Amino acid sequence: MGTETPPDLADIAARVAAVPVLAERLGGDPARWEVREIGDGNVNSVFSLHGPDGAVCVKQAPPFVRVAGPSWPLTPHRAHYEHRALQEHRRHAPDHVPEPLHHDPGSHLQAIEYLDGHVVLRQALIAGPPPDRLGHQLGDYLARTLFHTSDLALPAHRKRALVAEFEGNTEMCAIMEQMVFTEIYHPFHRNRWTSPHLDADVRRLRADTAVLIAVARLKDRYLTSRQALLHGDLHTGSIMVSDHATHVIDQEFACFGPMGFDIGNLLAHLLINYFAATPPARGDETAAQTRLLETVGTVWTVFATRFTDLWRTTPTGDSYPAALFPAGTDTLHAERLRYLDEVFRDTTGFCAAEIVRRVIGFARPADFTTIEDAARRATCERGALRLARTLLLDDHHDIHDVIEAARRSRHHAGR
Amino acid sequence: MGTETPPDLADIAARVAAVPVLAERLGGDPARWEVREIGDGNVNSVFSLHGPDGAVCVKQAPPFVRVAGPSWPLTPHRAHYEHRALQEHRRHAPDHVPEPLHHDPGSHLQAIEYLDGHVVLRQALIAGPPPDRLGHQLGDYLARTLFHTSDLALPAHRKRALVAEFEGNTEMCAIMEQMVFTEIYHPFHRNRWTSPHLDADVRRLRADTAVLIAVARLKDRYLTSRQALLHGDLHTGSIMVSDHATHVIDQEFACFGPMGFDIGNLLAHLLINYFAATPPARGDETAAQTRLLETVGTVWTVFATRFTDLWRTTPTGDSYPAALFPAGTDTLHAERLRYLDEVFRDTTGFCAAEIVRRVIGFARPADFTTIEDAARRATCERGALRLARTLLLDDHHDIHDVIEAARRSRHHAGR
Repeated sequence: MGTETPPDLADIAARVAAVPVLAERLGGDPARWEVREIGDGNVNSVFSLHGPDGAVCVKQAPPFVRVAGPSWPLTPHRAHYEHRALQEHRRHAPDHVPEPLHHDPGSHLQAIEYLDGHVVLRQALIAGPPPDRLGHQLGDYLARTLFHTSDLALPAHRKRALVAEFEGNTEMCAIMEQMVFTEIYHPFHRNRWTSPHLDADVRRLRADTAVLIAVARLKDRYLTSRQALLHGDLHTGSIMVSDHATHVIDQEFACFGPMGFDIGNLLAHLLINYFAATPPARGDETAAQTRLLETVGTVWTVFATRFTDLWRTTPTGDSYPAALFPAGTDTLHAERLRYLDEVFRDTTGFCAAEIVRRVIGFARPADFTTIEDAARRATCERGALRLARTLLLDDHHDIHDVIEAARRSRHHAGR
Repeated sequence: MGTETPPDLADIAARVAAVPVLAERLGGDPARWEVREIGDGNVNSVFSLHGPDGAVCVKQAPPFVRVAGPSWPLTPHRAHYEHRALQEHRRHAPDHVPEPLHHDPGSHLQAIEYLDGHVVLRQALIAGPPPDRLGHQLGDYLARTLFHTSDLALPAHRKRALVAEFEGNTEMCAIMEQMVFTEIYHPFHRNRWTSPHLDADVRRLRADTAVLIAVARLKDRYLTSRQALLHGDLHTGSIMVSDHATHVIDQEFACFGPMGFDIGNLLAHLLINYFAATPPARGDETAAQTRLLETVGTVWTVFATRFTDLWRTTPTGDSYPAALFPAGTDTLHAERLRYLDEVFRDTTGFCAAEIVRRVIGFARPADFTTIEDAARRATCERGALRLARTLLLDDHHDIHDVIEAARRSRHHAGR
């Protein structure tokens, strides 16, 4: 499958040249711009354009899933929601969200700040240990985007207007509703896993009523909660890193939902890389793997700390109204911890659901698929499934419990 | 305050006559229709029109709160949301929701089925015991309207479209956000209570950090949950009863929110009548009061039973997908009970918040205000506040716990 028509790079340049703000940013003669296809995402075509004065990134949303072709239609309006989410999130986390430059609702073409010197985080993690500041930067990104789009920061009328707007992204949400919470738990033509090695694991999982109910409960939460504006698909392929910076891209699944959905997705992919990095041999953990688990811990603790700070310093929303909780008295301290406990419970649940769907569903991550030895890959994946199951069914008090559970699951799968 | 301009009844008749479907329903010569103002609500003007062939009820939404006058502006678009909520709820509970006949978005005039032989439930409860079938009928109404507008029944794309639509009713939601959860907990010009009798009680309540946090948590739930399409203001003045039927009107606060908001509001007003019916003397409870508490129990148990039945028989929504939980196996039984436990926790919380705001806020109910002896009224109200506090702060396992807590609170306030 896949569309084999090569992209018309001259056409892309011509369309960009027709937008003054973009032409000006690139400078010079459009005929001499350097245009390259750079995307390796599943759904869009992505290009870079370099001119004498600067560069831009251009995304074209075809009305289907790029890697599947026209047989799998997909709303091109996703470009609109991506553009809007970029605007809203960049307002609050300008260091970690690229600048949206242009969106043409007619052609579903959008232009975004070109991220110079960045690579996709997933590739970086497959090649080596996580960048030093990654955990801090992603914890900060999560705290800012989620706090500032929640009722803790927004006046209710503004929040309700944003909710109404993003409800329109229902076709993209439907993909998550199906892929993450439903289709992998019963026979479905798009499911794939390392077979026959994991056949019995998949059979057991689908017969496990407690797992099915835990996942259904998470789906209900995704469907009913409008806590904050989510990225909606925060895996390590949606994150670009350079030596100093971390930027989050590909907001086309943006919608209002539970904060734990974004945080859990991110932790799931850090943990997937942890399980994929090396198979468990005599229980040894590489230095890179230790760093991954430290990053998991840092993401959560920085998120929780920054989120609490933002709540204390800028309680501008209608929830927990400042009029009833005057600054200085800090009567809300314990309540903030309770609020974060609830976000943490969501986080571990959504993390688990994401891990499962990346082991036995349609969109398996390169962390696993690049392991050529199927038996070795299955061992890594079995460890991840084991962690997911305990995250779904057992209480985990804090992020250190999750980290220890990851270690135990990896160790156990290797015996 | 209040607008003293008498309504132009001939104008109302002329406007109804201009709508063919209404003119036909009434029949005969519009000049001979009997037009009366019948509304005693706080916000709208309401009229009945009788013709030789039938009758209609007409509501006119002025751009302000009717009882306050133009100094308190209020969006007239509330008529649109009332009309839409009537349509959605009547589809699922036709026995308990009157038929919406017409809505003119330009003039904010709407026409609704005239409910012959009905009286306002609040007046009925002030005059005597609750009608026999009230608890069954309201439990049935709640189960049908809430289940069928939730993700348990609706496909996600339909649910998201409805959520987007009702987010527009933000100005009416803002009234609840302010009145129920905020303004009564600090000095605010619209607050009123039986003074000086309850002054110390109000002072204590506002200084009670645990109460403030519990109420703020409920406000956050009202702001973030989109569980089902709520009536949004389900007090006993929004319910009409005849010898055999129960109808719910005044849906202008309709929005998506937590199911427990509607259920809790209703129980709050049944309990307010319980506390107001007679003051506690030697601990005696009248037969009417016993019937009220039985009605409280019936509302919840019928709601819970019907809701569970609907979930088992028509699981047509995207939540808890039927594909994963085939009919017959009923693996979801325990999960349904857990789901209802969560609705019950919301219910007791919102019930408490509603009781408090009806004792010390702007919109005090006739159940209390018709008690002329201030000391006696304060005793009744203190019992209600006492119940509210325990509902906010202590665990209540089931509806019988709530009923016993009501009895204890009334008894204690009378000592």
